[in-house]
Formats: sequence, C-alpha cells, structure tokens
Amino acid sequence: MKEKTILKLKLNTDPRWVDLASKNLEEILVDHAYCEQKAASTGISLIVHYPEKERLVDELTLLVAEEWSHFERVVQELRKRSLPLGRPRRDEYVVQLMAHIRKGGPRERQLLDQLLVSALIEARSCERFKLLWLHLQDRDPELSQFYYELMASEAGHFVSYVDLAKEYCDPAEVDARLQELLRLEGRLS
Amino acid sequence: MKEKTILKLKLNTDPRWVDLASKNLEEILVDHAYCEQKAASTGISLIVHYPEKERLVDELTLLVAEEWSHFERVVQELRKRSLPLGRPRRDEYVVQLMAHIRKGGPRERQLLDQLLVSALIEARSCERFKLLWLHLQDRDPELSQFYYELMASEAGHFVSYVDLAKEYCDPAEVDARLQELLRLEGRLS
Repeated sequence: MKEKTILKLKLNTDPRWVDLASKNLEEILVDHAYCEQKAASTGISLIVHYPEKERLVDELTLLVAEEWSHFERVVQELRKRSLPLGRPRRDEYVVQLMAHIRKGGPRERQLLDQLLVSALIEARSCERFKLLWLHLQDRDPELSQFYYELMASEAGHFVSYVDLAKEYCDPAEVDARLQELLRLEGRLS
Repeated sequence: MKEKTILKLKLNTDPRWVDLASKNLEEILVDHAYCEQKAASTGISLIVHYPEKERLVDELTLLVAEEWSHFERVVQELRKRSLPLGRPRRDEYVVQLMAHIRKGGPRERQLLDQLLVSALIEARSCERFKLLWLHLQDRDPELSQFYYELMASEAGHFVSYVDLAKEYCDPAEVDARLQELLRLEGRLS
C-alpha cells in the first residue's frame, strides 16, 4: 500500500502499522513510549556531540523537553488503563535506517546523515500517529485526540531537523541526500 | 576541609569545588550543564532498565523532566553571557563513584547500587550548589539565586533516590550500603 503523506514525502506506510486492528492498545502504547524515549535520547546525544552549534543546541533542547513530556503522557495513558510499561523491543526499522549514517569521513557529513535520519524517523512517527488518530476515533476518542496533537508535533520536528541540516550543510546536498534516504527508507517498509 | 552538609551526610567537600575563586564562570556553567545532562540520561537509562517498577518509572520521569529544564536554564545563562557551551569533560569523580556499582549478581543488588550512587551524585551537586550560591551572592546575585533554587531541587532528588532504594530493596541493607558508599565517596574528594 502506497499513500501520500501529510508531509508530502514519498514514504510507504509501514505495513506493521497499517493493520492496526491486529494490535492491542498495550503494544501500541508501549512501542510509542519507547519511540519518545529514543527520540529524547537521540536529541541529547546530538547536543553532546555538537555543543558548539548554537542553533542545534537551542532547538534540540526544546525538542528533547517535548519528546520527554510525550513520554510522560504515554506512561499516564498506560497507567489510566492499568497496563504495564513493558520492556523495549528492538526496533528493526530504526536499526536499519541508522545503518545508513555514514561514519568517519568529514564530521559535517555524519551530522547531515544523523539529522536527516532523525527527520525521517519523525516523519514516520507523524505517519503512524495519523493512522492512530483515524483508527482510534470511534474506539477511544480521547486517545485519538492525543495522537492528533502529537501528529502536528512530530511534523514540526521533521521540519526542525531538515532546517538544521540546511543550516550546517550545503542545502543542495541536503536535498539530494534526503531524496536518497527517502528511497532507502521506502525499501525498509 | 570537612564540613557538615545540609543533607546531614558525612561528605567532604570536593576540593576542586572549594576554590571557586580560581574558576571562571564559563567553566562552572559548562560543567554544570553536563551534570544536568548526565543526570537526565541516568534517569532515562534506569527507566529503560527497570520499566516494570511503576514507582521508579513515575518518579524518575518527573526527575528527568526537572533535570532537563535545569540543563535548558544553564544553557540560557551561558547564552546571556555570550559564553559557548563547550565540550563535556571526563568527570573522574563520577567515573570512580560508578565503579562501585556491583554488576552481575542479583538484579536488585545492582539496582540498589545504581540508586544510591545516583543519590550521592545528587547530594554532591547539592553541596556544590550551596557553595556557588554563597560564592556568587555578591558577584552575580541573579545566578546565586538560581543556585539556591537548584540546591533545594537536588536535595529532593537525593531523598527520592534513597526512598526508591528502600521501596525495592531491604531498608536495613540500603542503610548499610549507603554508609559504605559514603565512606568510599569521601575518599574520592
């Protein structure tokens, strides 16, 4: 199944997420909690590795706070339903996407890949939240509304990451690499 | 130099921190920023390793948000003074203290050590902030006030970590191990 995304990206929708009906709410919420945790941890790691880049530090500091407040809200949703947080599972999608980050070589090239891979993960989250928003509208209107809010937030994070890449790297190179990573990302679905 | 701490702990005051006059504000603020970052990262790591422990998850989720808001405020203080964030330095004190965490063996024993080492790091931060509060009163009253607020917050985190240890481990064992770690910690100064 292919579909246009709200971010106008050429992303396939991850089949694991299309058939939401087969998933239970516990699995969805636990996965989601760890997505937020990993997004916060990635932001912290980028700040620690590039502290000299002021705009990156300032924007990612806010992004980390936002991701962490989402983690907190997801844990609250679990608690409300007496569901346990559960253990993190290995996210093959993220592992495979991160394998495309070119290490060694010029420092800015690695930064470019780190920022764009983060951007794609945010875009993918945005896609997933759109599906959850639609899927949960009848089943759990309150949670559906939560995913609607988060969808907007993740779209903002995608834009922030791409803008940061354009701040620190050649914009033409950013566009070319983004297209390349989009193609690679499409094959992961 | 020995002194009683506001937490009634038998901690020596780290000599690197006593002679504050020899330190410049940039060094103090950069060190401080990374202390907050490491405290947030440690909290996240504990949540990921012990997600089944509800009280731990709930309390550390709040603690991480608080540490991260402190990181944000320290970065703002740097920006106000046109000072760069700078790179993290290896914190020998923390490295040596963490070497006392007993790995392998019963899972609860490792958790006990992780919680108490975190408690001691918070207590030490509280001590440092007390010195900064006093030292900066004339030199920078606004920053002095900031450290006064943070002193209270770190004292609260010390208490949270010890309480969590008592929630999940035998309280008598917690007290004994805390005394042991306090003696080991004293030798690091």
